[in-house]
Amino acid sequence: MTGNGAPKPHALRVARPADRVDNGFYGQDIISVRQFSREKLSYIFDVADEMETLVRRFGSADLLSGKVLANLFYEPSTRTASSFMAAMLRLGGSVIPINEVRYSSVSKGESLPDTVRTLECYADIIVLRHPEVGSAQIAADYASKPIINAGDGVGEHPTQALLDLYTIQRELGRLDGLKVAMVGDLKYGRTVHSLTKLLSLYNVDFYFVSPDILKMPPELVADVRARGHRAEEVEDVHEVIADADVLYVTRVQKERFHDLAQYERVKDYYIIDPELMRLAKREMIVMHPLPRVGEISYAVDQDPRAAYFRQMENGMFIRMALLAAVLGKA
Amino acid sequence: MTGNGAPKPHALRVARPADRVDNGFYGQDIISVRQFSREKLSYIFDVADEMETLVRRFGSADLLSGKVLANLFYEPSTRTASSFMAAMLRLGGSVIPINEVRYSSVSKGESLPDTVRTLECYADIIVLRHPEVGSAQIAADYASKPIINAGDGVGEHPTQALLDLYTIQRELGRLDGLKVAMVGDLKYGRTVHSLTKLLSLYNVDFYFVSPDILKMPPELVADVRARGHRAEEVEDVHEVIADADVLYVTRVQKERFHDLAQYERVKDYYIIDPELMRLAKREMIVMHPLPRVGEISYAVDQDPRAAYFRQMENGMFIRMALLAAVLGKA
Amino acid sequence: MTGNGAPKPHALRVARPADRVDNGFYGQDIISVRQFSREKLSYIFDVADEMETLVRRFGSADLLSGKVLANLFYEPSTRTASSFMAAMLRLGGSVIPINEVRYSSVSKGESLPDTVRTLECYADIIVLRHPEVGSAQIAADYASKPIINAGDGVGEHPTQALLDLYTIQRELGRLDGLKVAMVGDLKYGRTVHSLTKLLSLYNVDFYFVSPDILKMPPELVADVRARGHRAEEVEDVHEVIADADVLYVTRVQKERFHDLAQYERVKDYYIIDPELMRLAKREMIVMHPLPRVGEISYAVDQDPRAAYFRQMENGMFIRMALLAAVLGKA
Repeated sequence: MTGNGAPKPHALRVARPADRVDNGFYGQDIISVRQFSREKLSYIFDVADEMETLVRRFGSADLLSGKVLANLFYEPSTRTASSFMAAMLRLGGSVIPINEVRYSSVSKGESLPDTVRTLECYADIIVLRHPEVGSAQIAADYASKPIINAGDGVGEHPTQALLDLYTIQRELGRLDGLKVAMVGDLKYGRTVHSLTKLLSLYNVDFYFVSPDILKMPPELVADVRARGHRAEEVEDVHEVIADADVLYVTRVQKERFHDLAQYERVKDYYIIDPELMRLAKREMIVMHPLPRVGEISYAVDQDPRAAYFRQMENGMFIRMALLAAVLGKA
Repeated sequence: MTGNGAPKPHALRVARPADRVDNGFYGQDIISVRQFSREKLSYIFDVADEMETLVRRFGSADLLSGKVLANLFYEPSTRTASSFMAAMLRLGGSVIPINEVRYSSVSKGESLPDTVRTLECYADIIVLRHPEVGSAQIAADYASKPIINAGDGVGEHPTQALLDLYTIQRELGRLDGLKVAMVGDLKYGRTVHSLTKLLSLYNVDFYFVSPDILKMPPELVADVRARGHRAEEVEDVHEVIADADVLYVTRVQKERFHDLAQYERVKDYYIIDPELMRLAKREMIVMHPLPRVGEISYAVDQDPRAAYFRQMENGMFIRMALLAAVLGKA
Repeated sequence: MTGNGAPKPHALRVARPADRVDNGFYGQDIISVRQFSREKLSYIFDVADEMETLVRRFGSADLLSGKVLANLFYEPSTRTASSFMAAMLRLGGSVIPINEVRYSSVSKGESLPDTVRTLECYADIIVLRHPEVGSAQIAADYASKPIINAGDGVGEHPTQALLDLYTIQRELGRLDGLKVAMVGDLKYGRTVHSLTKLLSLYNVDFYFVSPDILKMPPELVADVRARGHRAEEVEDVHEVIADADVLYVTRVQKERFHDLAQYERVKDYYIIDPELMRLAKREMIVMHPLPRVGEISYAVDQDPRAAYFRQMENGMFIRMALLAAVLGKA
């Protein structure tokens, strides 16, 4: 059950403290960016701001003291798993990390629904990373406790998109009126797809910068334009660098190219280095979901416009906000 | 040292708070179901009841605050490891999860006694899963801190048997006077062996339902009968379904059969589906240690007699009770 | 930045409680034994003593409540990882265990600096184990939060050397005036190299006991002698057993020998058994970094002079002391 406002059927078994605030998130699954309106985003961003203050001042809080998170990762992702874990720990909760499902009952053939129904016997909330599209929704259909999608294959990774959007808002002070350039592999990049959907809720112009064979899916471009956004497709980041408020960079993998000559011809179009940054505005930011492998040179890290490590930290604040909201403590 | 009532020799080094209750479990290892009398079972079940109340009302407690559990799994078992971890966390304790012993000092050739004596330098109690029969007893012989056996190969898995027994007691309100059908692979099933031993302490009739090549070991059947129990061996679950108070289902693995024609002939005898359930009593339960792979159809999950997920949750309560009792806080 | 007294540039972002004690460790990285003077060692040992008292009396404290440690292990080491984890948990902090970097973003090609800069977004301190010499210093150069080196290949493992030295001090009541025999593989043994460096700060005589092909590196022997220490190189432990106050034993691996006949000739020179122990002083100790594989016989474990398990426990106290000191809470 995703975002339809009603609590989950079994949620009655969860103790509901008297001081619970109903924020529209309590007891809900977080499966897709499609669940989020501007109002809901604004609410979560406000809570994330409070979380940052809390971490800066006190390090941690005890809002979720006594709560248990099952961090269920069917494929490894140190970054995402650590971010959720830190978020739960800094709220005073505890975490059951499950990273080795390949060797466990799952590899003995157990179905995802059974695994999820077992873990919810132990935990109050489940974060799920799974290689198959739609797996998070299946888990949510069977579970009575809330599920947070931490990536389901080429499907969605909503908390990544939320932290990306939150970073733009924080860094530039607004979302409306921006020119956002998505750079790199726009065909297979789950991250840029989800962020594009969220940005479509705001008054934003898009530049889609990619090799011809890695262009943004046409239906997504059409969808963006149908909502009234400008969306320009170009092949070289140099064409947009002077104009962009946000440069959202992803990696162009050599393996995607059947014709290596073509790769050699275009690869430098997507490298962000100090020379390129000299052409950019003074007030703009460079983002990256990380890990990077050469597409942003290390020399750019010192540039105050390099926002990708601040972006990482924002991930923890956003996840703290979501955990607190879903467990009724925001 | 298992269940002989005396505290472990080095236990003096453990701080003993003044409010410690001596319940016969304090400082003891939990190695085998043979350690448990009806009185001890009754005590642990009462504590488990209290643990359930505590979890329903408050989520967690701080009974074991400051205590550290080393969760030492030489072979993967997401379910059991997570259950112990959740039990410790919900009592306010903390956990060192050790799941990768294959790559660690153990794989460099370190002996189990040395590993255990190292870990007890860091932890207050050790939960051990190991592929070899007798390993838990060896660990207990060397350790001065308590060891809980979480499965030693085809040997014992006492906490599984305790949670199974506890589930029957809770679901049906009694243990005496029941007819219990064990179904599936009764030859290699550690779980059914241990549960049968525990049930022998009560006034219970047994049905052992299995293919001829997977029958309950004759010495165990003889032992049960010598204690005055009725024990009937049949091949098809249909012969007992109308009469059973408990249907304890395990998987019949194709690989056990040398003659596949024989497997094909009998395999449907051990499938629990809604059609079979129509022949069962209104007041009975279906149990399974999980994971299942087809032996109970998903359509049965909606049946209120399907107790296997409640059984999982009971596992956490039983393990909370054991941890608290062994650490002198029950 | 290692041990130069100035706080790290970004450390301002860390909340500094008013009750923070400046002990020369606050905000510092712990990379090398070269950072430690006699004064600093004395300070850490005093804090470790207090930690032991705390653990014996209360089990745990809440000194580091709200703090998060990232336990980043690029190669497995159950012992060291568990020791740091227990140290953090017993101080009331929490831990993000990262043990599977081979499968994670690191194996996707992410650089150590990026991984460390990501993790410091989530954690207050990072413990790093990495197979490459110099990796801990690289991590420290990029990180703004403190790094503790938990072993960088054949480089350093400073906390092991500290716990070794602390064990000698505790067991024998002094460091000056001792005769210390290092036994086994002295060529590749990172542990003996680091401990030798630390012991050079005290008035200690050395025996280096090893096969010819596994002798202590000549520059280290020369260095020790240049500092005015006696340092005698012998091949058989029997030559020094009657005289040694400390026998620090490491394993002689068969695989190091090209000529197996040579291995067969000398291997028994490095086996510690009760027969050998009869030749030792009444007041002396046998140490080993563990794991052992036959080089100390099990029969020696009962000997009160066998200090290797107490050595393990001291590891936790030393790591508690370092964590508290670096986080400004000692």
